Amino acid sequence: MDTQSTLHSQHNFSSENNTLSSSTTSHAIGVFDSGVGGLTAVRKLVNMLPNERVIYLGDTARVPYGNKTAATVSAYSQECVHFLIQKSVKLVIIACNTASALALEDVQRISPVPVVGVIEPAAEAALSATHSGRIGIIGTRATVQSGAYQSAIKRICAQKGIERETTVFAEACPLFVPFAEEGWHYHPATRLVAEEYLAPLKKAQIDTLILGCTHYPMLTDVIQDVLPNVVLINSGEEAVSVADAILHEQTIHAAQRGINRIVDCYVTDKSTAFMSVAERFLGFPLGMAEEVRFGK
Amino acid sequence: MDTQSTLHSQHNFSSENNTLSSSTTSHAIGVFDSGVGGLTAVRKLVNMLPNERVIYLGDTARVPYGNKTAATVSAYSQECVHFLIQKSVKLVIIACNTASALALEDVQRISPVPVVGVIEPAAEAALSATHSGRIGIIGTRATVQSGAYQSAIKRICAQKGIERETTVFAEACPLFVPFAEEGWHYHPATRLVAEEYLAPLKKAQIDTLILGCTHYPMLTDVIQDVLPNVVLINSGEEAVSVADAILHEQTIHAAQRGINRIVDCYVTDKSTAFMSVAERFLGFPLGMAEEVRFGK
Repeated sequence: MDTQSTLHSQHNFSSENNTLSSSTTSHAIGVFDSGVGGLTAVRKLVNMLPNERVIYLGDTARVPYGNKTAATVSAYSQECVHFLIQKSVKLVIIACNTASALALEDVQRISPVPVVGVIEPAAEAALSATHSGRIGIIGTRATVQSGAYQSAIKRICAQKGIERETTVFAEACPLFVPFAEEGWHYHPATRLVAEEYLAPLKKAQIDTLILGCTHYPMLTDVIQDVLPNVVLINSGEEAVSVADAILHEQTIHAAQRGINRIVDCYVTDKSTAFMSVAERFLGFPLGMAEEVRFGK
Repeated sequence: MDTQSTLHSQHNFSSENNTLSSSTTSHAIGVFDSGVGGLTAVRKLVNMLPNERVIYLGDTARVPYGNKTAATVSAYSQECVHFLIQKSVKLVIIACNTASALALEDVQRISPVPVVGVIEPAAEAALSATHSGRIGIIGTRATVQSGAYQSAIKRICAQKGIERETTVFAEACPLFVPFAEEGWHYHPATRLVAEEYLAPLKKAQIDTLILGCTHYPMLTDVIQDVLPNVVLINSGEEAVSVADAILHEQTIHAAQRGINRIVDCYVTDKSTAFMSVAERFLGFPLGMAEEVRFGK
């Protein structure tokens, strides 16, 4: 994974705004999402970087971000990341695709620690994985319409001088989010919906597909069954890989072993259904989630 | 339809807070919903009361209400109804089930005009329609868990001295909302989802089913196919019937003919997808929707 472009925008961290001390290695990684979906990224994080502590913030009072203006999404994202910074995190992962697309640069500007979004890492991973140059993207309607992944792929091709022809096919899959939240990961209805949504991508003979929404990893099995020979790129997992590279680059990765699966979870509105959905997305018991209120 | 209980709580209208003049008949009916769903009630309204003008407000910036606390839902609802009152509406219909369950009394307290919710009218209609006394309710998880319909049915039975045994069976159908918004009204996947959700109600041999969510009338065909001999109660339609009775009781119903299908639509956040979903729910072209901002 080439982290050049991501690291490049983290200059604040190692210069004027660096407020981290030498004890930083023991600080947590902050993960922010508009709702519960980012816990699929946390699931990857605790598996890939088991020594790291995690502080998660889901802005469940204002979810979804996808139908809001860029200015609103930026303001909400800055508020959420500010909360994580006050918790002394050493790095922030924006797991939310909409916030990554619309607010990453604004958040990086105000953050004294590195901030990693999901779009650039997933786009890079897709370009590394594809042989045919035919890449699919699925996401919410807002993510697909934003063109953020399409732009990122184009930008990376230009930056790296990739001359092979790359064609991008994007499809919105709005019903995947409620199916994932409902826990119908492999229901016959889910399969029917997946077949319909993914038919244009199958026809386009993509060989790589970016799961451009934090909820979609919950539907990996059904997506893979409909597109059996396609490499699936989990955007949250790719963001964790980039975060790992930054932590090592800055030598602020956790040194000690044995403190894995420590996830402090905060939400801005705690619905009765939150815990059960959260633990299904996370893959292990969460213990508790604390409600915090701001921006009301 | 017995409107006694609804009219009873409207005492403000004809006493100390009555700010309406004699020209009130030409004023619009205000319809408020947390989002786009209430337009199914407006569809019924323009068909049943074609002479009435309608002002619709969808709080799309803060939808859904179902996962928010009662205090928050009440505050949002009061703010929305205040907006409608400033537009000089002569009556307000709260089409949103959550707001009807959690905020009706608070809104009635601040309103100088009658306010009608959807729960009491639908519960009354179900009790009138049932022969077996076996009534089903479907709604969002929040509506079902709130027990609002169950309580209303119990209260009405006690008020009216209904001695026949009444049994209520409630099922949450969370995927119906996204299917309705996606426009998959009769997709094979929708049918599979409906069969699964409605199986316990079929088994319970209900003879009447309350569609306790403004989105569900869009799925009437598939629901009726799964439950062929069951009377479906459209909560929005029942609220319009009660509103009609109040307008006549107060002699403020529209006198003139020929101004039908005038719907002024306001939303608190106008997404790109709003208009197409709105017009599908409404059943005719909307013309325009104006974005208003408050409570941010």
